Amino acid sequence: MKSITDRRTIRKYSKEDVSTDMLNDLIQKASRAATMGNMQLYSVVVTRSPEQKEKLSPFHFNQKMVKEAPVVLTFCVDFNRFSEWCKYREANPGYNNFLSFLNSMSDTLLFTQNFCVLAEEKGLGTCYLGTTLYNPMGIIETLNLPKLTFPVATITLGWPDENPAQQDRLPLNAYLHEEFYSPYSKEKIDDIYSYKESLEENINFVNINNKKTLAQVFTDCRYTKEANESMSEEIIRVLKIQDFL
Amino acid sequence: MKSITDRRTIRKYSKEDVSTDMLNDLIQKASRAATMGNMQLYSVVVTRSPEQKEKLSPFHFNQKMVKEAPVVLTFCVDFNRFSEWCKYREANPGYNNFLSFLNSMSDTLLFTQNFCVLAEEKGLGTCYLGTTLYNPMGIIETLNLPKLTFPVATITLGWPDENPAQQDRLPLNAYLHEEFYSPYSKEKIDDIYSYKESLEENINFVNINNKKTLAQVFTDCRYTKEANESMSEEIIRVLKIQDFL
Repeated sequence: MKSITDRRTIRKYSKEDVSTDMLNDLIQKASRAATMGNMQLYSVVVTRSPEQKEKLSPFHFNQKMVKEAPVVLTFCVDFNRFSEWCKYREANPGYNNFLSFLNSMSDTLLFTQNFCVLAEEKGLGTCYLGTTLYNPMGIIETLNLPKLTFPVATITLGWPDENPAQQDRLPLNAYLHEEFYSPYSKEKIDDIYSYKESLEENINFVNINNKKTLAQVFTDCRYTKEANESMSEEIIRVLKIQDFL
Repeated sequence: MKSITDRRTIRKYSKEDVSTDMLNDLIQKASRAATMGNMQLYSVVVTRSPEQKEKLSPFHFNQKMVKEAPVVLTFCVDFNRFSEWCKYREANPGYNNFLSFLNSMSDTLLFTQNFCVLAEEKGLGTCYLGTTLYNPMGIIETLNLPKLTFPVATITLGWPDENPAQQDRLPLNAYLHEEFYSPYSKEKIDDIYSYKESLEENINFVNINNKKTLAQVFTDCRYTKEANESMSEEIIRVLKIQDFL
């Protein structure tokens, strides 16, 4: 599976469109992913219109891919459809709770990744936007998402117009544990992070941010405690509005 | 990608082992999935020992695959490793919060599905155990999982010793939305669920459970409001213990 082992995130796309037939075929095939009780607890909203891309853009911190990609896909947790089915079938749905949110988040992300693998195998490029969880309310309003749904992943999709270098990954022993989880000693941390810390781009990253270590770039600049805490509160607020908490 | 379009869940495995080399190769390749800020916020614990399988089994409601599969993989959210790295690098990690849990859950599930695709492409069979979220504390204790980790997916893995029929899936228009989420009318619900409801196995399912509709089998027998609510409370309790809430 060369498309998996050679994978790169693609942020720049050619002008060529992705046909509806091709897109629909990939989305349908992706639904073969494992799903809890065969409930398929997800929906995907396809955005092609410039107006909708324009509206979504700020919720993704105006990353240029949202407006430049031919297709933007918002993958949503969805217990609404299943609950509607229950209501029309004299059944009393009990899915307005946190476990149901996590179960449907699992379904949705397995489906999302299956889609990405299928799209990349066809030569398409994807970029996964983690920002989806940062601004859920704006996305909910823009896409008219009802209660018991929640956006959890956004993929920008198109034909690649760049060929970036592949990113590093930690060595296998960083995240593989045999029988029991092994605690991380200083020696082990030094060992598994040394390659990443030695990369020129990361050394530059530390220097331009005026930091002493690469880890400080993450904690002080990229993913700060303050931002994480304030966004955590916002997600909890929106989960309540969407009836999952 | 025939392995995706022809996919079936495999619950029965031959006696043949899955070699460590092959397993490690697949896990390493799976790490090519998209990951937030290239942080790889996951760990996987490999269970091969009969003793550990025996201990894990009840937390998965004694589903026979846990003891019978040559390999059981527990995929865990992991912000512990990253935070340890920060501490050894004079950085102050701020990932003991709910957003960080969801970010690492995303990373973990993309990695999990990437692994499953790679394994199935090699001819291996997998079964995804959603039970992982139902009994997190038992799994945490059995695998020695530290704070800032959380088990979110379990995969049983082996060479298939069965060839089950493929499950139905909803038609594409059930979960695909163009530009805006479309509400579900009774007509649309009837349309998208009619095939599922017409299947003989589902008609039997309704009859043996003494229910009027298939939806009632889900709401009254398989995934009840009471069980969902009690497990939601337990997950929240354990997320607090693990420092994510």
